[in-house]
Amino acid sequence: MPPTSKDSQEHFVARWLNQRALHTHQYPAPGSWVQPQANHPINLASGYPFPDAIPRTALVAALSNVVAMEGDAPFQYSGSQASEGLAHWIAQRMQQSGLMIPDDALLLTQGAIQGLDLICQTVLDSRSLVLVQGPTYMEALEIFHNYTDHVVALSCDRPDQDFTEVLATYLASRKGNSPLSLLYLGTSFQNPTGLVLSAEARRTLVALARQYHFLIVEDGAYDALYFDAQIPPMKTLDIEGQVLYLGTFSKTISPGLRVGWVIGPAPLVEAMARFKKDLGNPLVTALTAKFLHDEDYDTRLDWLRAQYRMRGHLATEALQRFMPEEVCWISPRGGFFIWLRYPDRVDNTRLLETATNLGVSYVPGQYFYPYASHDNPKALRICFSYETPVRITEGIRLLSRALREQIVALP
Amino acid sequence: MPPTSKDSQEHFVARWLNQRALHTHQYPAPGSWVQPQANHPINLASGYPFPDAIPRTALVAALSNVVAMEGDAPFQYSGSQASEGLAHWIAQRMQQSGLMIPDDALLLTQGAIQGLDLICQTVLDSRSLVLVQGPTYMEALEIFHNYTDHVVALSCDRPDQDFTEVLATYLASRKGNSPLSLLYLGTSFQNPTGLVLSAEARRTLVALARQYHFLIVEDGAYDALYFDAQIPPMKTLDIEGQVLYLGTFSKTISPGLRVGWVIGPAPLVEAMARFKKDLGNPLVTALTAKFLHDEDYDTRLDWLRAQYRMRGHLATEALQRFMPEEVCWISPRGGFFIWLRYPDRVDNTRLLETATNLGVSYVPGQYFYPYASHDNPKALRICFSYETPVRITEGIRLLSRALREQIVALP
Repeated sequence: MPPTSKDSQEHFVARWLNQRALHTHQYPAPGSWVQPQANHPINLASGYPFPDAIPRTALVAALSNVVAMEGDAPFQYSGSQASEGLAHWIAQRMQQSGLMIPDDALLLTQGAIQGLDLICQTVLDSRSLVLVQGPTYMEALEIFHNYTDHVVALSCDRPDQDFTEVLATYLASRKGNSPLSLLYLGTSFQNPTGLVLSAEARRTLVALARQYHFLIVEDGAYDALYFDAQIPPMKTLDIEGQVLYLGTFSKTISPGLRVGWVIGPAPLVEAMARFKKDLGNPLVTALTAKFLHDEDYDTRLDWLRAQYRMRGHLATEALQRFMPEEVCWISPRGGFFIWLRYPDRVDNTRLLETATNLGVSYVPGQYFYPYASHDNPKALRICFSYETPVRITEGIRLLSRALREQIVALP
Repeated sequence: MPPTSKDSQEHFVARWLNQRALHTHQYPAPGSWVQPQANHPINLASGYPFPDAIPRTALVAALSNVVAMEGDAPFQYSGSQASEGLAHWIAQRMQQSGLMIPDDALLLTQGAIQGLDLICQTVLDSRSLVLVQGPTYMEALEIFHNYTDHVVALSCDRPDQDFTEVLATYLASRKGNSPLSLLYLGTSFQNPTGLVLSAEARRTLVALARQYHFLIVEDGAYDALYFDAQIPPMKTLDIEGQVLYLGTFSKTISPGLRVGWVIGPAPLVEAMARFKKDLGNPLVTALTAKFLHDEDYDTRLDWLRAQYRMRGHLATEALQRFMPEEVCWISPRGGFFIWLRYPDRVDNTRLLETATNLGVSYVPGQYFYPYASHDNPKALRICFSYETPVRITEGIRLLSRALREQIVALP
């Protein structure tokens, strides 16, 4: 093989990349904030289901069963018969939460993330304005930043703020000529705040979307994991087809499967399907469909809700018991997360160092804001979904120690 | 739930779609040309591995084994330890074909198709010109048409034509101001012609890419399935980093897994990785990595080569025995396909009808050309990879009967 000239390669490729003006990612790779340590730090950082929440034996059995029934089909391009009914099965279940979904309005995706990426590919260009909650889901930000520099976060994490008022004020006074394309929302048990938008807020948001002509993307990743009462998706209030809904099995079966769905107006879903070049992921959809066919998903959801409710309550109790007075949070009503806000005088870098040294990890608040944001919020996300109950309590005790040290040390 | 106003939905969404000026697909859905019949028509249409080529028992065992070793890890976001070495393992194997690949130059993808899609997302815009062989792989055309209207096929299927001369002439005389972005090539056992580009042609193509400043995408999907001698990828001739290489396990393990890879200059691969929003597909990469760890892949490839060589030779023998004189083809040296060209007086529609009625399916030639092409080529693709040897021979006999009827019936 001829020798490779690295310089000329880079020169040549730079020409192509410049055309696209790709945005430089300023963030570390996902997971790099979880500092691995010899003594297994307590992981309050990763938004993972706890290990036994994943039905691994049943999933292996599902693959074995679908192969026994259908031979090579699940491994071919054409895929399994089992997976043909999966989209319809999901649509039927969504009806239980009040959504009537025509068959051409639901597209299977690789987790909610691919759904969001396909929405962006279909409706955004480099001039588009995207609005998000501040703070919001970090992977969503990474996707938006692939398509546009215009990502604006509107504050949603302060008790004295009503998100719909913040949004209405922003929309009424907005300057600049970026076309407003979409508002991305976690409506129930939002990542990272755990917040739930009220029914009134949801109605106001849909009305604002109609008035100002933008799409709303509702991320329903945690909808099924309510602690007490089911909350119907905001999509149920949608008359004009302005709300797109993202669903996923990542939190209720397994993140590694990468099976989710997007619901929206048929023409938009059809356009998204054209950009979806994974040939339907025959194997994982077959496996998922067979699992759902063989197992009792409702019993499973009831059990998961009880598990996460117990963890969420334990976390809240530990916060109340250990945290200094100046730290505040809102008790979760579902999902995986609690958002802690602490006084301005705490140094974020030193807090992370102290917590890491004590053996507990979390995700610093800044990761949940757009890149262009100059905020370095005095906040962090803890996740109560992954660790054992004992370690959740201990992790929060250690974190409170780190916070207390910072709060006391500084004037 | 309020009633849905379908009209206003469509109106609203149309505004978004118009901004993107999405191209209308004029083609039937994939697979719709395979006419299902009660008596199981002989399938010379689908480019699938034959059923027993897929190691389904070993794949089920691989999943079971990786779960036994790593518990929930392959089902989580972070993925399996088994899959961490997969990219490196592939890079090492590619070295056997003469390619030295730094770690940052290889990206795992969902089959070759996602690799091609990521290349397009990274380097194309709506003004870009893409050149392809005429005929070429139909899924690649679908991807290009998602990004640009400027897709030009340069003829490669006639014995009196040298593709490099056709390309050189086109480049020298090209008018219009679409920036030439990339040339997409099947270099060995091309889909749909089965053709292999000579070493001289490969050198000329790389020189033309340097002279005219375009990227070459080399689709190596069938490289491992040579009948007699291994042919090094064109990428081995690449000094300037202008050749991107697409690889896949779809033909050698299973299409349904959706595991492939792309090799290219590190800055371009890094840019592509940013658009890849599938979180690395933890489960399928774990399954694939464990399979490759537990099984002897070289022995498997030897066996597959013998199987496809036998099928390819049988198909050639049947063509020689049954086809009318006016039909021509080139004997395959690897891969899955043979491209048949037949006289102008054969009516394509009636040929397909006759063949379907006789119980044999194939893919008409027109599907392998860009949408804008007005050619309705007197050609078709047959695939010898999927059916049993007996049915391959019988399928070709029936197809020759259909062709003979058309040739004799028409003056």
